[in-house]
Amino acid sequence: MSDRIRGVLAPVLTPFNKHYEPDTKGFINHCRWLVDNKAGLAIFGTNSEAASLSVSERLNLTDAILEAGIPANKLMPGTGACSISDAITLTGHAVKNGAAGTLMLPPFYFKGVLDQGLFNYYSEIIERVANDKLRIYLYHIPQVSGVPITLNLIEMLRKKYPNIVVGAKDSSGDWSNTEAMITNFGKDGFDVFPGSESFLLKALKIRGAGCISATANMNPAGINAVFEGWDQVQGEALQSYADVIRKIFQALPMIPAMKRYVAEVTGNPEWRVVRPPLTQIDEEIAKKLLTDLNQAKFSMPNYPK
Amino acid sequence: MSDRIRGVLAPVLTPFNKHYEPDTKGFINHCRWLVDNKAGLAIFGTNSEAASLSVSERLNLTDAILEAGIPANKLMPGTGACSISDAITLTGHAVKNGAAGTLMLPPFYFKGVLDQGLFNYYSEIIERVANDKLRIYLYHIPQVSGVPITLNLIEMLRKKYPNIVVGAKDSSGDWSNTEAMITNFGKDGFDVFPGSESFLLKALKIRGAGCISATANMNPAGINAVFEGWDQVQGEALQSYADVIRKIFQALPMIPAMKRYVAEVTGNPEWRVVRPPLTQIDEEIAKKLLTDLNQAKFSMPNYPK
Repeated sequence: MSDRIRGVLAPVLTPFNKHYEPDTKGFINHCRWLVDNKAGLAIFGTNSEAASLSVSERLNLTDAILEAGIPANKLMPGTGACSISDAITLTGHAVKNGAAGTLMLPPFYFKGVLDQGLFNYYSEIIERVANDKLRIYLYHIPQVSGVPITLNLIEMLRKKYPNIVVGAKDSSGDWSNTEAMITNFGKDGFDVFPGSESFLLKALKIRGAGCISATANMNPAGINAVFEGWDQVQGEALQSYADVIRKIFQALPMIPAMKRYVAEVTGNPEWRVVRPPLTQIDEEIAKKLLTDLNQAKFSMPNYPK
Repeated sequence: MSDRIRGVLAPVLTPFNKHYEPDTKGFINHCRWLVDNKAGLAIFGTNSEAASLSVSERLNLTDAILEAGIPANKLMPGTGACSISDAITLTGHAVKNGAAGTLMLPPFYFKGVLDQGLFNYYSEIIERVANDKLRIYLYHIPQVSGVPITLNLIEMLRKKYPNIVVGAKDSSGDWSNTEAMITNFGKDGFDVFPGSESFLLKALKIRGAGCISATANMNPAGINAVFEGWDQVQGEALQSYADVIRKIFQALPMIPAMKRYVAEVTGNPEWRVVRPPLTQIDEEIAKKLLTDLNQAKFSMPNYPK
């Protein structure tokens, strides 16, 4: 059994003020609440609007949560970028600060690139960061990035960097792909995290490593209960309740919907702010969201005001 | 007649050394040769591998060419970015230094976003840069960016910012879209540049503004001859010869093919380097490229060694 990070991670929401500036205090609060609810912190994922942040904004937010006492071994920052120079800066900073791993998008501007080109990207970053504590998780989200992480690419990277390229997040929503990742590489210690808790129990049954899911921002304890209890009598029931909450958020543009809910919980309307090109959800839709969550007896217990 | 930039612009190739670092001297040489051959400089476009550069690399290269005496009024830097903070930094730097305009991608990570979200992105940048000399050209390249610039978005932006959002580059390759952009907005002074010289004569006939084309890096004088002579007796012949050269490069991955050719012309093998995720073309393919160009009697006259 490796001591690598497993379980439930949230791609941590990034709060902004009305001028679109990151709200550092709100970010620290949210991270702390997630850790208290046993979630790991995949800061700067898709649902963090990480693509909408500059490199220095990401570095500053990371420094701020570390200074606030958030444990580095709970962190799996998103450090992939279109530019290898940016990816090297972000990845180097993460590993130097003791992050458990880095979740790395491929460069996502050019489309139709070769696996060899993507291999060169990851390879160059690994060689330049040059730190044997580096643990990279490949991020497969082709419907957004437009650039898939193929099984062939994983094989190429595993062969050259078996102790560094140690896992993947599969957000394709295609279970057969997640299954193939686990079946092909799991037995050699490759940790696969589906991108939704909907696949959590299914993945754990075949030795998946957990999940990294948007709605872990909302329901970390509920999803963690599945992770801890999946092989016990209540496993299916826990999965079903997690699915109910997931589906309520998933019916809407998830990032603004989740932020709208935190705005309600905190009483801070600035939590509604998303950076362009995202847009807030209409208040009529928000009302339905709040009603649906209420009916499902959902809350975010002890969320800091 | 406005005094805005028109004619032929090249999305300027960015040379790297073997460590993937920008080759500033090679970049200055290439810019100077392009200007000597009457091309404007759309530095940091798709063919510049701009997405593969960090913000500071882009700022440093811009400063370097300005210090080398490249005239700012020939520049139309790519300043769009996934992050509004980056786009504001890049756009502010361009306008402060007297660039003729900025060529702006939409944020290209999130897909399926609303026109309102894209409007908010451009609007926020315009308000924050707050400089009435700013001239924005919208960059439509949906097959790469995954995020189209719709006619509806152009209309929204023209209505609010008629003196700032003054044009577009259409790299969709869809002539009917280029035609619609020119027909709908051209008469009000909106300058449309097709993304390929293949459409140059056609566009000029209906008051297009020129073209911004990859192969203007190779054949600036030949393409400029079309721009200057399209309505004269030799117009069609000039277009045909430009098309021949275009097609030779277009048959291959264009960026590495063009770089391979400059490596041949300069005798500097480092010109072959592309940043990951792009990959160099095989030498067998390169040989055919050189033969084809030779047979077409193509050269890059007076290119600095």
